[in-house]
Amino acid sequence: MSLSAATLARPDAGARPLDPLALRAAFSQFPQGIVVVAAEIDGTPEGLVASTFTVGVSLEPPLVTFAVQHTSNTWPRLRDDASHLGVSVIGADQDGLCRQIASKDRAGRFSGVEYTADDDGALVLHHTPLWLKTRVYHQFTAGDHDLVVLEVLNLGVDQQRAGLVFHQSAFKSLPANEA
Amino acid sequence: MSLSAATLARPDAGARPLDPLALRAAFSQFPQGIVVVAAEIDGTPEGLVASTFTVGVSLEPPLVTFAVQHTSNTWPRLRDDASHLGVSVIGADQDGLCRQIASKDRAGRFSGVEYTADDDGALVLHHTPLWLKTRVYHQFTAGDHDLVVLEVLNLGVDQQRAGLVFHQSAFKSLPANEA
Repeated sequence: MSLSAATLARPDAGARPLDPLALRAAFSQFPQGIVVVAAEIDGTPEGLVASTFTVGVSLEPPLVTFAVQHTSNTWPRLRDDASHLGVSVIGADQDGLCRQIASKDRAGRFSGVEYTADDDGALVLHHTPLWLKTRVYHQFTAGDHDLVVLEVLNLGVDQQRAGLVFHQSAFKSLPANEA
Repeated sequence: MSLSAATLARPDAGARPLDPLALRAAFSQFPQGIVVVAAEIDGTPEGLVASTFTVGVSLEPPLVTFAVQHTSNTWPRLRDDASHLGVSVIGADQDGLCRQIASKDRAGRFSGVEYTADDDGALVLHHTPLWLKTRVYHQFTAGDHDLVVLEVLNLGVDQQRAGLVFHQSAFKSLPANEA
């Protein structure tokens, strides 16, 4: 996995299939922020961690996207049983929280976690750089994932908090701007 | 723009329209990597800078996405006149390059820039953490942007190079992992 740009010019470039493991390693070269997409359903918090989130997909209306694997057990519950979804951008000091909510132990995901859910069920974590209240705007199948477009209905920011970035298979913290 | 999470619980939350300027400021709280999407068309390099790129939207097939404003003059040329597109992830030390290619002076965007274009026209920059050779897989309208899904056909990585992140309206460099 150390192909130079010159490889691109090879006539056979693109002919061989890309191995998923190699792909994953390559994709980790692209720095990505991390979010928790969550809702309270029948009084129980449900949420998933996504590293495929993008803001600014549209400003009018305000749209954001994330992708989720077809194998996700949580996404069908969120999609089908929640009218609104909270999106919480994980902050620089929240990597432990991120690991907890990403865990396979669904019952323990929100144990001890500070969050607020509104009357519509949208659930956001506390102490994050940015949270959004959203609802599903569009969803379509993209290979082995669903690509979900969310419309932003409300939001809150805390500019003193910086984001966490997943990069080269490691969590990296970004400094907040000087006040 | 310093709403606390408690704002979410207000009954009127979500009722007021979100101002595009405030939205942009809020979205800047989410750290995003930056790419150049480019092709050589009739011997001339054409490209645009996108801060709405996401990898890992699917692994089988390998899909990535980016969003581009309807007002872009460059995207219609790339979409209509290029069969394949190169995607170059901007590295930690390439913020100047990023600004140059984002400039309104189209003729000068690639002046002095080191790049390689293959026989299919896919154009990638040199010295980047990651480049991808892609073709358009799907495109759909998402508000005031087009959301473009690209299929990855080939790629190259340089793990010694770290990515550049746009965060809180500033370029921030990530450290590369220790070798």
